[in-house]
Amino acid sequence: MIGPNPEVARTVQQIIEFVGTFTFAISGIRMAAAKHFDWFGGFVCGFVVAIGGGTIRDVMLGATPFWMTSTIYVICSVIALLVYILFAKSLNRLENVWLIFDTLGLALFTIAGIQKTLQFDYPFWVAIVMGCITGAAGGIIRDVLLNKEPIVFQKDIYAMASVAGGLVYWLMMTLGINVGLTAIATFLVICIIRFVAVKFHISLPTLRNEQ
Amino acid sequence: MIGPNPEVARTVQQIIEFVGTFTFAISGIRMAAAKHFDWFGGFVCGFVVAIGGGTIRDVMLGATPFWMTSTIYVICSVIALLVYILFAKSLNRLENVWLIFDTLGLALFTIAGIQKTLQFDYPFWVAIVMGCITGAAGGIIRDVLLNKEPIVFQKDIYAMASVAGGLVYWLMMTLGINVGLTAIATFLVICIIRFVAVKFHISLPTLRNEQ
Amino acid sequence: MIGPNPEVARTVQQIIEFVGTFTFAISGIRMAAAKHFDWFGGFVCGFVVAIGGGTIRDVMLGATPFWMTSTIYVICSVIALLVYILFAKSLNRLENVWLIFDTLGLALFTIAGIQKTLQFDYPFWVAIVMGCITGAAGGIIRDVLLNKEPIVFQKDIYAMASVAGGLVYWLMMTLGINVGLTAIATFLVICIIRFVAVKFHISLPTLRNEQ
Repeated sequence: MIGPNPEVARTVQQIIEFVGTFTFAISGIRMAAAKHFDWFGGFVCGFVVAIGGGTIRDVMLGATPFWMTSTIYVICSVIALLVYILFAKSLNRLENVWLIFDTLGLALFTIAGIQKTLQFDYPFWVAIVMGCITGAAGGIIRDVLLNKEPIVFQKDIYAMASVAGGLVYWLMMTLGINVGLTAIATFLVICIIRFVAVKFHISLPTLRNEQ
Repeated sequence: MIGPNPEVARTVQQIIEFVGTFTFAISGIRMAAAKHFDWFGGFVCGFVVAIGGGTIRDVMLGATPFWMTSTIYVICSVIALLVYILFAKSLNRLENVWLIFDTLGLALFTIAGIQKTLQFDYPFWVAIVMGCITGAAGGIIRDVLLNKEPIVFQKDIYAMASVAGGLVYWLMMTLGINVGLTAIATFLVICIIRFVAVKFHISLPTLRNEQ
Repeated sequence: MIGPNPEVARTVQQIIEFVGTFTFAISGIRMAAAKHFDWFGGFVCGFVVAIGGGTIRDVMLGATPFWMTSTIYVICSVIALLVYILFAKSLNRLENVWLIFDTLGLALFTIAGIQKTLQFDYPFWVAIVMGCITGAAGGIIRDVLLNKEPIVFQKDIYAMASVAGGLVYWLMMTLGINVGLTAIATFLVICIIRFVAVKFHISLPTLRNEQ
């Protein structure tokens, strides 16, 4: 279903999940630091951003949560914590780098979520929803734990970039295009939409609240 | 288990879930608007109120979340969003209508939750708890996402109306009464308890906090 | 896997879960009272602290949530609510007693979480994470429902005591020591670490937030 060579697709998916884990964990730890959480709180916030969306997806798919099948996700979050503790000062100067990290994570997790859902034989619309949950739900849980309104509901184009990427994935697979090309195109579409939206301050309209 | 004709029971359950989805989605979108969320935030809040309780129920029952088996729930939430965007001003004038919508949703979801749990051969006390979760948990998640204390913990009779309805359902089924009649009686009991409680400002006692 | 006599291990595990349920429920109800929640809100907060961590564990393990298999957990939470309603004034004077209750619950739930995870044939590192989730996640959900930043992320040694206990459990089982002795040692290690940390105001370092 997802391409001619399942081995390659599987390896690509694992690399995608590892890079995404690190970038998302750093984003969670950084926000925990702004709330003066301790090291454990930082680890949990980082870990939850990294694995929260995928865990919700896996529980809904009836699969064992992916992070329970390999130590790599816990280790990766611990490394992210150590990197932050050692280099917080330098890291926090790189505002644009964080935006890039966060966007890469969104794109990578969206693709991983779509591919895993398709492997479980769900229809494509479920895969697009699951791609969006995999990419964006971790950040929502993070904001809930930090006692803030989820930023994804208020600013920028974020989750909608994931949905747009999902539609591209669906369109290209429907047209019979190779899964590698499809993943790359999806990745680029998500990144470009998000970067353009941030650069030009494009947001979704706010709901009116006329009483 | 739930009546002489499983086909009819199934159809009734589907209609119930559809009407409940729309009414609950509108309630979530309306609260998201009060927090100035964007369209995506409004959709998520509406969708979460509509499917949150049932999803927790299904995950606990070991079933595939119901909204993943039919596009109707996503579509219904999108329609609710569009209706809100187009008619917010008129809609917000109808304070009493919202109370009615919300109460209908509570009653319908409670019954749907009880029936599904019984179909999975759990004992009745689990079904009553699941009915309450199906009816009330979506609103709790909504309040958590909106960064508010869950209103269901502080005001009016809400979840207890669901529990009372569950007890009526149990009593009538135990007495061998027809499932259709049982569902209607449960529906009426929940609605009447809630309307009476709101009308006469009846609340559960508040916990004392004497130090 | 967890000892020579599975019957004994099972009974010990059930007693552990019951005592833990009561102590954790009281802690949740007490915090709900401080927020002026009503009786239903108090029950839910108590119930969620008591069963939240174990429920997340069971859903991730692919098991039926433990509280759905016996009425004892719901009944135990109702009793905790009644005890609080009747004796709130006296109970709130006993500050040190609450610390002890909370620590007992943490230790008992950690052990229950580790043992259940091992019964499902997961590796030991998953069991340690699940022990920590079983012990600490209920309190995190409680704080989220109360609209507060989770206290476990900011103060004292709490979750890390659970992790340390998990490591002791793993070490002793690896060395072939009897499961009863292992459980007792784990219990003592968690309690001692927590009491010492509270007594001497030992906390994990806070994350730096240098911009």
